[in-house]
Amino acid sequence: MAKTKKQPRPKAQTPKGFRDYFGAEVRDRALMLERIAAVYHRYGFDALESSAVETVEALGKFLPDVDRPNEGVFAWEDDAEGWVALRYDLTAPLARVYAQHRNDLPLPYRRYAMGPVWRNEKPGPGRFRQFYQCDADTVGAASVAADAEICAMLADTLEEVGIPRGDYLIRVNNRKVLNGVLEVMDVAEDQRDAVLRTIDKFDKVGEAGVRELLGKGRLDASGAYIDGVGLSEAQAAPVLAFLTSKGADAEATLANLAEAVGGSQIGADGVGELREMADLLAAQGYGPDRIVIDPSVVRGLGYYTGPVFEAELTFDILDEKGRKRQFGSVAGGGRYDDLVKRFTGQEVPATGVSIGVDRLLAALREKGRVGAEAPGPVVVTVMDRARMAEYQQMVAELRGAGIRAEVYLGNPKNFGNQLKYADKRGSPVAVIAGADEFDAGKVQIKDLVLGAQIAENATLEEWKDRPSQVEVPRADLVARVREMLGQ
Amino acid sequence: MAKTKKQPRPKAQTPKGFRDYFGAEVRDRALMLERIAAVYHRYGFDALESSAVETVEALGKFLPDVDRPNEGVFAWEDDAEGWVALRYDLTAPLARVYAQHRNDLPLPYRRYAMGPVWRNEKPGPGRFRQFYQCDADTVGAASVAADAEICAMLADTLEEVGIPRGDYLIRVNNRKVLNGVLEVMDVAEDQRDAVLRTIDKFDKVGEAGVRELLGKGRLDASGAYIDGVGLSEAQAAPVLAFLTSKGADAEATLANLAEAVGGSQIGADGVGELREMADLLAAQGYGPDRIVIDPSVVRGLGYYTGPVFEAELTFDILDEKGRKRQFGSVAGGGRYDDLVKRFTGQEVPATGVSIGVDRLLAALREKGRVGAEAPGPVVVTVMDRARMAEYQQMVAELRGAGIRAEVYLGNPKNFGNQLKYADKRGSPVAVIAGADEFDAGKVQIKDLVLGAQIAENATLEEWKDRPSQVEVPRADLVARVREMLGQ
Repeated sequence: MAKTKKQPRPKAQTPKGFRDYFGAEVRDRALMLERIAAVYHRYGFDALESSAVETVEALGKFLPDVDRPNEGVFAWEDDAEGWVALRYDLTAPLARVYAQHRNDLPLPYRRYAMGPVWRNEKPGPGRFRQFYQCDADTVGAASVAADAEICAMLADTLEEVGIPRGDYLIRVNNRKVLNGVLEVMDVAEDQRDAVLRTIDKFDKVGEAGVRELLGKGRLDASGAYIDGVGLSEAQAAPVLAFLTSKGADAEATLANLAEAVGGSQIGADGVGELREMADLLAAQGYGPDRIVIDPSVVRGLGYYTGPVFEAELTFDILDEKGRKRQFGSVAGGGRYDDLVKRFTGQEVPATGVSIGVDRLLAALREKGRVGAEAPGPVVVTVMDRARMAEYQQMVAELRGAGIRAEVYLGNPKNFGNQLKYADKRGSPVAVIAGADEFDAGKVQIKDLVLGAQIAENATLEEWKDRPSQVEVPRADLVARVREMLGQ
Repeated sequence: MAKTKKQPRPKAQTPKGFRDYFGAEVRDRALMLERIAAVYHRYGFDALESSAVETVEALGKFLPDVDRPNEGVFAWEDDAEGWVALRYDLTAPLARVYAQHRNDLPLPYRRYAMGPVWRNEKPGPGRFRQFYQCDADTVGAASVAADAEICAMLADTLEEVGIPRGDYLIRVNNRKVLNGVLEVMDVAEDQRDAVLRTIDKFDKVGEAGVRELLGKGRLDASGAYIDGVGLSEAQAAPVLAFLTSKGADAEATLANLAEAVGGSQIGADGVGELREMADLLAAQGYGPDRIVIDPSVVRGLGYYTGPVFEAELTFDILDEKGRKRQFGSVAGGGRYDDLVKRFTGQEVPATGVSIGVDRLLAALREKGRVGAEAPGPVVVTVMDRARMAEYQQMVAELRGAGIRAEVYLGNPKNFGNQLKYADKRGSPVAVIAGADEFDAGKVQIKDLVLGAQIAENATLEEWKDRPSQVEVPRADLVARVREMLGQ
């Protein structure tokens, strides 16, 4: 056995980029995920919780000619299994699970998954190396009816957790349309990436900016000159037509897109898929107030193969500098058809959505739908240590009535500390009983919320006849506490 | 960039000792944990979700003179943080969290935590390297009122999740009593461990066995001779008195224990603590049908410093060989006063309980309290691909009525495959509509549960007039499905 040397005290700190969640943070998230799961379940999606640890081989992040797995995942060498790693998302494990269990799973397989994922990235303000994801995917359904279903479910989910209709918009596009546009543009292979990167800037620089960047270049806001891709006006035209193709309604947008993809077959397929999705969604009553075709959605360019979608919250918030801006994206997804093939050699069509758990939770806080300062427990204070059983009896009665309650378990000597404790707990009510009260069969009930208000507005007449502390018969404890809590 | 060589297909498998959880396995556990959390919350415990990754230093598993952290944890070297590891339980992180955030946390701090932990151990049948724990602890309360509270809460929790009173028993002991016994035995320091190990065998070998093992030794069932500790009869007497001290009631047990610890101060303290807990619990109505003093509970010898407790389920199950046995332990805990000191130098008293999530879930399954074959979704089959919008409309209506429903999203060509799919999904009802039905404004509803029963009992008269498939007006879809589901 190794000899243990005397060590300095360990630092009490999470590793950088990791954090702890306390109380309401945990409960609010759990409640939100529970509501989301209920919608997914109703849509026929089954829960899946895959192992947090995967072989690096299964995750597909291993480069064969380096000693260690590449950056981006937390990996280590296991004696028996070789390199293993923490999952970095919930999609790669789904592909492994589906390939491993495909004989036992229904086809198509609808599944949802919720849980932490880990990224070995440089942490920064608000950027963590462990965070929650919440995904729903349909594996083995080639039809865009599956994509439409995911979009409808996403709309239902947002409303179910507390985002009212009108405060969100699900924008749908199709990767094939973009491929069609690139086809008719006839750009050289080595210019393709530059074009895609430029398209991605549309939200920021607008139509004129994209036009410049596709051509000779552009002087940006900082005064720096950004070289352009070097396309001619004619070559750039389809991209600009594509990006600006959003019409007054779906029909107009689809017509514009059909024009933008010209004679490209894949482009026409993409427009056809968008039309089919729009029709399916319209038939179910998901109109453009909830789900719209929007060609400016160009997310995850490399990954998706067909429909792509994004849920945006459209209400305004103030950013850290006090400026109004839209809340923005909280979920996104699309069709990816190649993930399972890595394992089985067979192409399995799949589509899915991932909700940004932290962002959606932040939005719900913004809207006051969660985290409305949950009151702390009723605190039964301890005046006489020998009467602990009787104090415990009080909290038991309160709990029996469904009231969150606890007895003070610290050193009871200093009564002031007990009230400070109740304050730190956010307690609405404190119960006080010493020898006098016990002898008289009474108990004191202190309304801490009212007490704090009185303290703040001590001069106001209206508080005069509302005492913040009352003495009541012991038998009335529960009823009077309930009254004070407004229950 | 590294050059990517053509690789063989990756194996679709979890690393050994890891597993995936599907559907009801995930939902049942979530439901159970939610119910447990509700009880903990009512008792004033706050949720805590600490980081899954800790520095090895904070976990306290690092031996300074070896290169790698010792076995038992999954650890790796982080560029910025040095050695980090996955948490192996929820108690070590609590100590770190408390030390890190103690200025912001109430004192005492009651917290609960639920989540996976990881152990780098050799996996075996039913032994996994990732599993759930569910803990509740009170940090900063020296009084055994805190221990009593945890025991009462544990009883409430077991009943709340579905273990009826009478089917469980919480057994309480105190480590100080055992220390007192060892003191009066006057055993040599180097014999102490052997004595403790022998005590741990009491459940297996009984009083006579322990007597032999403390003395000269014993021929065990396999015929092997086990050397004894070599104590005299007189030396061994206090241990035997201790182990057999359980009396007809708490009073009798406490009297026996007081005798067993003789003149030992620490022993007397332990007996006093047990008495105090028994009084507190009795005053709250937790009688010996729920919580008993039981000196044979000697868990976690090294770790605990005061009260220890264990929840046992007392109903019989059949083991893998078909023999009756008690279900056994599902939770345990006790007082540990040294964990935070590692970080701060200050001793902070703490006590807590850990529920074996998988074992309790297995017990609830055994009792039929969860996992009662949750029915699959209603499946709307697809006879006519062009009518997808109308099929989607049907599932939307069903969901709107709170019925779990989905449309078949696979290739609809082979209708037999659709019914096989419904079977695999455990669907209670299938909905069928083709051109004829649409033209007539009708829909077919097939009762798959009844259909399966008829198939099994085709000769029985009683099925004759109960058709398993009915044609109803389209407008009656939801009402008739609901009827078939017995809702």
